[in-house]
Amino acid sequence: MDLGPLIQPADTTILVVLMDGLGGYPEPDRGTELEDARTPNLDALATEGVSGRCEIVGPGITPGSGPGHLALFGYDPHEFALGRGALSAAGLDVALRAGDVAARGNLCTLAADGTIADRRAGRIPSDEAATLVERLQREVTVDGVEVLFAHEREHRLLVMLRGEGLDPRVADTDPQRTGVAPPPAEAHDPAAARTAAIVDDVSAQVREVLAGERANGVLLRGFDTHEDLPGLGDRYGLRGVAVAAYPMYRGISRLLGMHVPAKPDDLAAQVAQVRAVWDDHDYVFMHVKTTDAAGEDGDREAKMAAIEAVDAVMPDLLALGPDAVMVTGDHATPPQMSGHGWHPVPVVMRGRHLGTDDVTRVGERPALGGMLGLRPMAHMMPILLASAGRLAKYGA
Amino acid sequence: MDLGPLIQPADTTILVVLMDGLGGYPEPDRGTELEDARTPNLDALATEGVSGRCEIVGPGITPGSGPGHLALFGYDPHEFALGRGALSAAGLDVALRAGDVAARGNLCTLAADGTIADRRAGRIPSDEAATLVERLQREVTVDGVEVLFAHEREHRLLVMLRGEGLDPRVADTDPQRTGVAPPPAEAHDPAAARTAAIVDDVSAQVREVLAGERANGVLLRGFDTHEDLPGLGDRYGLRGVAVAAYPMYRGISRLLGMHVPAKPDDLAAQVAQVRAVWDDHDYVFMHVKTTDAAGEDGDREAKMAAIEAVDAVMPDLLALGPDAVMVTGDHATPPQMSGHGWHPVPVVMRGRHLGTDDVTRVGERPALGGMLGLRPMAHMMPILLASAGRLAKYGA
Repeated sequence: MDLGPLIQPADTTILVVLMDGLGGYPEPDRGTELEDARTPNLDALATEGVSGRCEIVGPGITPGSGPGHLALFGYDPHEFALGRGALSAAGLDVALRAGDVAARGNLCTLAADGTIADRRAGRIPSDEAATLVERLQREVTVDGVEVLFAHEREHRLLVMLRGEGLDPRVADTDPQRTGVAPPPAEAHDPAAARTAAIVDDVSAQVREVLAGERANGVLLRGFDTHEDLPGLGDRYGLRGVAVAAYPMYRGISRLLGMHVPAKPDDLAAQVAQVRAVWDDHDYVFMHVKTTDAAGEDGDREAKMAAIEAVDAVMPDLLALGPDAVMVTGDHATPPQMSGHGWHPVPVVMRGRHLGTDDVTRVGERPALGGMLGLRPMAHMMPILLASAGRLAKYGA
Repeated sequence: MDLGPLIQPADTTILVVLMDGLGGYPEPDRGTELEDARTPNLDALATEGVSGRCEIVGPGITPGSGPGHLALFGYDPHEFALGRGALSAAGLDVALRAGDVAARGNLCTLAADGTIADRRAGRIPSDEAATLVERLQREVTVDGVEVLFAHEREHRLLVMLRGEGLDPRVADTDPQRTGVAPPPAEAHDPAAARTAAIVDDVSAQVREVLAGERANGVLLRGFDTHEDLPGLGDRYGLRGVAVAAYPMYRGISRLLGMHVPAKPDDLAAQVAQVRAVWDDHDYVFMHVKTTDAAGEDGDREAKMAAIEAVDAVMPDLLALGPDAVMVTGDHATPPQMSGHGWHPVPVVMRGRHLGTDDVTRVGERPALGGMLGLRPMAHMMPILLASAGRLAKYGA
């Protein structure tokens, strides 16, 4: 529901500790990573507060990082979306602005006759490609439009156009095969004709700048524009801050109007940063990537160790005195899958007037008996806001 | 969903015992009021029937009495609403009709130059104000429109206009400060011009009638109209009756087409009234206010005592042989908050073909293991109707 009319100010702070990919699933002979890790501090939090499980998007749906974080921040992922371009840009630590048009691209090898010889420029090494992308950034210019190049990895890059009246309804210039010339950019709608012409201009300039290199052309796909989402300030009256090391999460947080301080080097630096930003913010979000990375690697022990490392810093975080605190994940990354899963993620929360339940341990199965029940993740933000005294009564 | 096509008649009776503000939250060293009260009869009901928890409006949302009761009666509070004017009128035991325009008002003191000297007429005592409001009811008249005055308490009153073609889009005549004259009523829309003129006429007549009194003017705010809601008869084919002592709940029930017999004096009188109306109704709603009043006072012991008093009359109520019975609350009123809370409320239900579960005690935590689960309160009415044999099969 629209919380807008209910939002009221309060001098309170909400802390969210997110372990990326926290969720897992138990098997007959062993628990989940969260269940089997040694977590005395998180268990104490569960004992004092309330537990439950959250589904991010819906039953059986495996969420990407975009919907996962939108839901965490209380944005129903069925109503709100971060476009592919915005997410790609966020992952490169580039902040798209409303109206920007972005496309993902490949550096490719064009033969003398202009046909595509290699769609990935022989999987050009990252450092060599980065140098070429820097040259493109310096030398490609279009009147009245800002052109931004961001190198991703190997042959992959992102191309962004910034200016008035751009329109993303442009067909891919990547034919997805070799032996043919890249087609000119085609506008799906007359309104996109100028954007298509700009794309052709950029592609031609790329060929000139990179003439003689093994990567001497660019293929673009997935033109997308960015629409601003309402930020945490507009939606909830919160001054948000994101303490995160990875570009994707820094980028998403920035798109939602959160302050994003300098990249912290490790968990200890993150805790120090949380402490440093505490007094000037109402909503402090700390993102931990190591849990997900271990799950992606299929490394159960490493995931348990990552959870235990977060457990160890909980006393320092709780010493800051949040009025409401939540520890959870943005999706499951079961080591058995070496990837994201659709499974609900466990949630533990402690806060003013939240009370307690009989759960005394964190974990997927202990959480079954918790007061929070099984709910969509987007329900958690209103509960945190309520506990922090930031929601007025609905109806007389 | 729209139950309309599924509604079928049955010779069955549904009993709903509502303890206002029943919900609470446990803390590490003590249970909720419902958990800690001595409730052998309610525990027996839980043992024989099914338990669960209900959220009234949504996660984190603290419901007012309007949405709380709408949900209880199966009206999704996101789809249906009772306007502020209708609720205020209900609270004064006045039934608004569709098309009526109502505003809340203050009796005020106007200086000789017409400016506001005191917005609350020196907080005029209730009995003195009541006499003045009676005089207004006798002496203020408008051609073609019925003007109704209802005294609330001290300086507060409600003014209602009843007639054809009224429109509530009229600006407040209460400037919310002293030293200025009350502004003439301003129509936000041309269609409300006549209503604004009537408001000015009424205000002028009030000044004449009360000339020389310390309360010699009226300030009006929150013009609102009433739209009829479909009643329990139209929606469910139920002959409803509300056994309630407080004007607000009597008024809401009346707005939903329920029969509302004379005000009962106490719980024993309520039970006697339930018995008296039993044979002529299919849906018997008994509203108990003492639980909420104790919660609002922050008095845990009094709330437990209020719950125990209800427990004590349960055998008499159940002896009437309801086909389906539900005991629940319309929202939480945790004594720790001395006010409404957002927390789910416990529900216990027993009825034909409802079966049982393993819950043997009423309370927020015992209910976690119940068959009803955690749901929106508006889900309960269809389940009661089903148990009472009043819902046909959906689809072939």
